[in-house]
Amino acid sequence: MNMPLKKKPVSGMKDILPIEMQIREYVLEVIRSTYRSFGYTAIDTPAVEHIENLSSKQGGDNEQLIFKILKRGEKLSLQNAESENDLCDSGLRYDLTVPLVRYFAAHENELPTPFKALQIGNVWRADRPQRGRFRQFTQCDIDIIGDASSAAEVELILATAQALTKIGFKGFQIRVNDRRILSFMASYCGFGEEEQTEVFASLDKMEKIGNDGVLAELEEKGFDSVKIKKVLDIIAVLQKLGRESDASSLMKQLALLLKGYLNPHVAADLGTVINNILALKTSEWEIVFDPTLVRGMGYYTGTVFEVNVPELGGSLGGGGRYDKMIGAFTGKNVPAVGFSLGFERIILLLMERGFVVPEQSERRAYLIEKGVENSKVIEIMQKAQLEREQGEIVLVIWMNKNKKFQIEQLQKEGYTQIVDVYLEDSKPT
Amino acid sequence: MNMPLKKKPVSGMKDILPIEMQIREYVLEVIRSTYRSFGYTAIDTPAVEHIENLSSKQGGDNEQLIFKILKRGEKLSLQNAESENDLCDSGLRYDLTVPLVRYFAAHENELPTPFKALQIGNVWRADRPQRGRFRQFTQCDIDIIGDASSAAEVELILATAQALTKIGFKGFQIRVNDRRILSFMASYCGFGEEEQTEVFASLDKMEKIGNDGVLAELEEKGFDSVKIKKVLDIIAVLQKLGRESDASSLMKQLALLLKGYLNPHVAADLGTVINNILALKTSEWEIVFDPTLVRGMGYYTGTVFEVNVPELGGSLGGGGRYDKMIGAFTGKNVPAVGFSLGFERIILLLMERGFVVPEQSERRAYLIEKGVENSKVIEIMQKAQLEREQGEIVLVIWMNKNKKFQIEQLQKEGYTQIVDVYLEDSKPT
Repeated sequence: MNMPLKKKPVSGMKDILPIEMQIREYVLEVIRSTYRSFGYTAIDTPAVEHIENLSSKQGGDNEQLIFKILKRGEKLSLQNAESENDLCDSGLRYDLTVPLVRYFAAHENELPTPFKALQIGNVWRADRPQRGRFRQFTQCDIDIIGDASSAAEVELILATAQALTKIGFKGFQIRVNDRRILSFMASYCGFGEEEQTEVFASLDKMEKIGNDGVLAELEEKGFDSVKIKKVLDIIAVLQKLGRESDASSLMKQLALLLKGYLNPHVAADLGTVINNILALKTSEWEIVFDPTLVRGMGYYTGTVFEVNVPELGGSLGGGGRYDKMIGAFTGKNVPAVGFSLGFERIILLLMERGFVVPEQSERRAYLIEKGVENSKVIEIMQKAQLEREQGEIVLVIWMNKNKKFQIEQLQKEGYTQIVDVYLEDSKPT
Repeated sequence: MNMPLKKKPVSGMKDILPIEMQIREYVLEVIRSTYRSFGYTAIDTPAVEHIENLSSKQGGDNEQLIFKILKRGEKLSLQNAESENDLCDSGLRYDLTVPLVRYFAAHENELPTPFKALQIGNVWRADRPQRGRFRQFTQCDIDIIGDASSAAEVELILATAQALTKIGFKGFQIRVNDRRILSFMASYCGFGEEEQTEVFASLDKMEKIGNDGVLAELEEKGFDSVKIKKVLDIIAVLQKLGRESDASSLMKQLALLLKGYLNPHVAADLGTVINNILALKTSEWEIVFDPTLVRGMGYYTGTVFEVNVPELGGSLGGGGRYDKMIGAFTGKNVPAVGFSLGFERIILLLMERGFVVPEQSERRAYLIEKGVENSKVIEIMQKAQLEREQGEIVLVIWMNKNKKFQIEQLQKEGYTQIVDVYLEDSKPT
């Protein structure tokens, strides 16, 4: 006798039940076909990545959340292991950006320039489990590698907005900012360049932990209290001014606030991004300038952006420009910008809204009474096959004893045509 | 400065380049839509599985090939660890069957009866790397849980043959056998029931290591040499008789050979499977009875089957009935039968054949010369968007310095319409 099975999935991960799976497959197909229509090229990378690449400091806090994989065979020596890293040579990827950068570095010569990549795949983070947040989840990333112009940002944002619109979202807001604008602000407040990554990491938590939380964290990190006060005051003023689709008026006020610290070229570039998107967008969503937007990752060098929907606290996705990340790995900088959709949040929202996948095929079920002669079964299966060829989904199954319950279940699954096949002599008259 | 990146994927795993990815996505969509038309329900399970479930002895040799995942936080104690298992609480799944059985056990009450599952996903095995064999690979499994009748086998085989046909395979052969027939043969040769799993495991290697190899292995395992000779002689006779779609004549000869050891009900059931498939199949492939077919896994209890194509040594997939596996885990037997497609081999074969994905959309590229005024760029992007809405794939990119090379690359990717957009004053006349 075997050990009894552990029935539940491992802690923090989940089985996908049929109804959710239908929605996931539908949404993935919408995302895939939308991005494909913009000329993005699908790629795939292994789930397992070198531990060195995952620990390169590009991954920020996610590097604390790696599922590490044990070495195998002779390479594993329990006796000589002094730390975790002696036991592991690889881990599960925590995002799709590190693998993308490795992929690009390995295959650059085989890829078009610029390279517009679409990568959809699972990532793993050993986060504390909490509602709606899982340790395995799907990400959908598009990235443009090799285009330094703001046309890349415009297209990433338009393509993503179109995918969200096709899924059925309306009235969402895409906020944009530029890390360099944050940097000008930090410089104006007296923070040195080397301090800024830490300052931004704290400012990024504003929505989660509030002004006081950020204040406490910055003090704890040991920053000068005058500088902290200055930066928090500016943020408060900017928040009052609000987010603006008329970027130039907000930019003017920002320039006044920062008294000469704002580089006009950077401001103009961001203005172009926003104005071009305003000129090109055709559906109901907003693009706004939000000079308080940070985005967590340390590797961003320019524009950053984030999608929010009114009814959801967090974001549905985001991204930004990371012109120095490839160089940090390979020694040669290549401009890059990416947008990552929060697939799991999209699914969660759709499930909560009771979203039903638009049915493209008629669903028909043949319920065959047990004992029906073989020739009759063959005849039904032939008929079913012809119907499948005409685009129907056709199920041929045995009739259960509790036929009423069986039919109810089938109707729930979307079977509208249910045909009973009885034994000749038991056919109801 | 960061550590330089390791550019290659981890040993034995691979990056999927754009051309292969196109084929993979196409084939997956054909498989998915074919199985869906038969009423299979897509599900998904986590890549990470409890180490106990992966080590239940149901996985055969694959249990030696697990990528094990290190415990995290307080649960990991390097000092007190005496063996690998003290360090690990989970591992990457090596097949989709163990997770399916766990899934069914956990969610039985929420699933239809019978449950027809489609699961497509990656699995991981720390096999010695070799050509065309990778440590991460995709499997496509269909399973019917809760149907003890041979109608389940008939449908699994027909659905799979149809998927292969739609992908473009012709002339493949599906061999079927029944583990109980092998068992009768082993009993006739004098092997006890408890010896048979080991005997079958060796017989399964006949194609790989030949008659002498199997002989040596069985002797090494310590089996009686008279019994070994007897079973190998019968196999040799059966191989001479060949594989037969007219199962009944081969079955008659087998009955003569086994002198009363062949249970006629089992023989008749298998005959029904073959005859019904012969009656139902509509395309060019063969279904044959092969009394020497074993299939490696220990958990099979009845029919086993395997697809072969003429030009390929190995198989394109296979499966069988495993009526006792769910019971071994949960204490309650539920009939189950499954067919697993060897997705990676299918892709490998298609790549070798120079398969080209049938293009459904026109591909158009706008090459914009650097410096073109912004209003013109917007105009092109608007035009592109309208063309996308008409079903085209439209790329808008900057013109590279080496335009000739860029155009060649685009043509390779399938772009047939390439439109240059020049600065007003540099337009060639």
